Amino acid sequence: MNVGQPLRPILKPAASREQEPRPRREQPGVDRPSPGTNYRMYSTLSTRHHLSRVAVVGGTHGNELSGAYLVKHWLQDPSELQRRTFTATPFLANPKATERCVRYINQDLNRSFQRPFLTSKGEQDEPYEVRRAQEIDQLFGPRGSANAFDFIFDLHNTTSNMKACLILDSEKSVFIMHMSHYIQKHIPGTCSICLHGCPEPERFDLMSVAKNGLALEVGPQPHGVLRADVLSLVRALLACGLDFIDLFNQGTSFPAFDIVAYKLLEPVDFPRSPRGELLGFVHPQLQDKDFLPLKPGDPIFQLFSGEEIFYEGEATIYPAFINEAAYYEKRAAFFKMEKCTFSIPPLEAPAASAP
Amino acid sequence: MNVGQPLRPILKPAASREQEPRPRREQPGVDRPSPGTNYRMYSTLSTRHHLSRVAVVGGTHGNELSGAYLVKHWLQDPSELQRRTFTATPFLANPKATERCVRYINQDLNRSFQRPFLTSKGEQDEPYEVRRAQEIDQLFGPRGSANAFDFIFDLHNTTSNMKACLILDSEKSVFIMHMSHYIQKHIPGTCSICLHGCPEPERFDLMSVAKNGLALEVGPQPHGVLRADVLSLVRALLACGLDFIDLFNQGTSFPAFDIVAYKLLEPVDFPRSPRGELLGFVHPQLQDKDFLPLKPGDPIFQLFSGEEIFYEGEATIYPAFINEAAYYEKRAAFFKMEKCTFSIPPLEAPAASAP
Repeated sequence: MNVGQPLRPILKPAASREQEPRPRREQPGVDRPSPGTNYRMYSTLSTRHHLSRVAVVGGTHGNELSGAYLVKHWLQDPSELQRRTFTATPFLANPKATERCVRYINQDLNRSFQRPFLTSKGEQDEPYEVRRAQEIDQLFGPRGSANAFDFIFDLHNTTSNMKACLILDSEKSVFIMHMSHYIQKHIPGTCSICLHGCPEPERFDLMSVAKNGLALEVGPQPHGVLRADVLSLVRALLACGLDFIDLFNQGTSFPAFDIVAYKLLEPVDFPRSPRGELLGFVHPQLQDKDFLPLKPGDPIFQLFSGEEIFYEGEATIYPAFINEAAYYEKRAAFFKMEKCTFSIPPLEAPAASAP
Repeated sequence: MNVGQPLRPILKPAASREQEPRPRREQPGVDRPSPGTNYRMYSTLSTRHHLSRVAVVGGTHGNELSGAYLVKHWLQDPSELQRRTFTATPFLANPKATERCVRYINQDLNRSFQRPFLTSKGEQDEPYEVRRAQEIDQLFGPRGSANAFDFIFDLHNTTSNMKACLILDSEKSVFIMHMSHYIQKHIPGTCSICLHGCPEPERFDLMSVAKNGLALEVGPQPHGVLRADVLSLVRALLACGLDFIDLFNQGTSFPAFDIVAYKLLEPVDFPRSPRGELLGFVHPQLQDKDFLPLKPGDPIFQLFSGEEIFYEGEATIYPAFINEAAYYEKRAAFFKMEKCTFSIPPLEAPAASAP
């Protein structure tokens, strides 16, 4: 799995958030704004040009097998990545971890794209993933530069029941919100949007080296296992994303819409002993309930002794990454999310003269 | 997960099998012998004494978390393991692997109990698990000796949809077949019996150090994850097993019965390139279909290119360990099994004078 850095808060500081347009906080069960609601529009920092340099990355985590094996297949036969206006580049991000079928060798590659890592002088004892992040930044970036790739799809799996989750930085990424909307319409029922909300200077993830990026987080799938249903869903999501870029490149404009998305908040750790040992596990009533409302007083953990632990927050939240294997070590039994509805402005077709 | 050693055949040589009583091979859908069927009885090498020294082992594979965490809990509070006639001993088999949440450190502990490993002279560079196997043999064996523990329960998880699978050596272990029957009756609908069929001198598994043993193989659960439903099932299965020993110790006899069990045959590997790379994955129609009939011509794999691979055997078999994460490296996409019905003789209560 892909997103979130439990070691520091993911939300932007309150001061900077104050200056931004505010989405409407959703009440449980209310998925759409009422007709005629007049939201303030968000900034329209959308792509104004063709997107010709697109990468599809797998194996960022070496034991998340859908992306790793699809990329290996596409390196042999890239026909699935060809569209009329471009052909996406398949790329295996962490080949050493993929070979050993582990998440990472020295440290999480998808937390290795902070500026200090990207600019460190390559010393011999530097973690493998730091060196790899620098290589990836050179290949698909450099981050923030005009040379950076137009788009990266990063393919992930989770042991959580997230089904098809589309992860992007913020609702202000209008182009990616349109792409997500397009994917949702074509793969209905299973597809949710999650905003990690990490501001640009602090980005630590692989996608941040490109101008735009979308992570496809699909589960449940045990790490180290390829499930046909999950593989098929990853393929379908990616195909829709590539189709959307192709339509856009060919001059399609997309109208405004309202959409529900979930803002990732902080993690909730398992109950632990003072020495850090687990004292319990995700409650059976919470297991597999990603994206469903969790109300104050609902059970969240059960101790080995049988005792139950209840959610003590003041408001309903929406959990994600419930019982993700990779997050035990990161002290996250699940992440809280806030359910929001956003009004997304139209996306204009790129200028016809663009390359 | 627990059983099977793909590097050599698991079936006994044909010559030795010829001398044994033959169970009736089941046709698909026929789960019970017709009334009046007269089976030859198998040897009744059952326990004739109280069982007082019982161990419950978890963490034989360090990323199979149900057993690892239950054992850690029982080491703090063993009340769940107490019965009227005995208290079982909880034991964490591979603490180093458990701490790192990996299957093993140097080699699979549950393949480290062959005689050559148990009798090797402890050299400094010996694999951690070989040294650990020798310690476990001293604690709960020595294997084949009068001092060996009466019974070991070994708690495992699998990513396969095996639900509650009880694994023992052979139907000739009458005491364990009665225990399995007892567990099946008390936890109906989810509980299957699998016979690994490895003859005593070739045993490689942890349970083989004790006089009797039963592995509880419960899934699906991703490795590195604790699921409440799986944990609860493991606890219920073990409680039934302990209850059965307690009843037996208290003088209960158990009548004869007929029972369906599955004999483990050879593994079937994934389609691979000459270099060993996966070319495909378990077919969606086979995924999660453990213990269900697989007929000649049924699809078993799908290639990344889309092509399907069909089962070419001559007879219906029953698959197990479909898409078990730990078996990718062992080149087993699933194991074939043969469905059999056995007539199990009565189990007499132990002599009243036994300690």
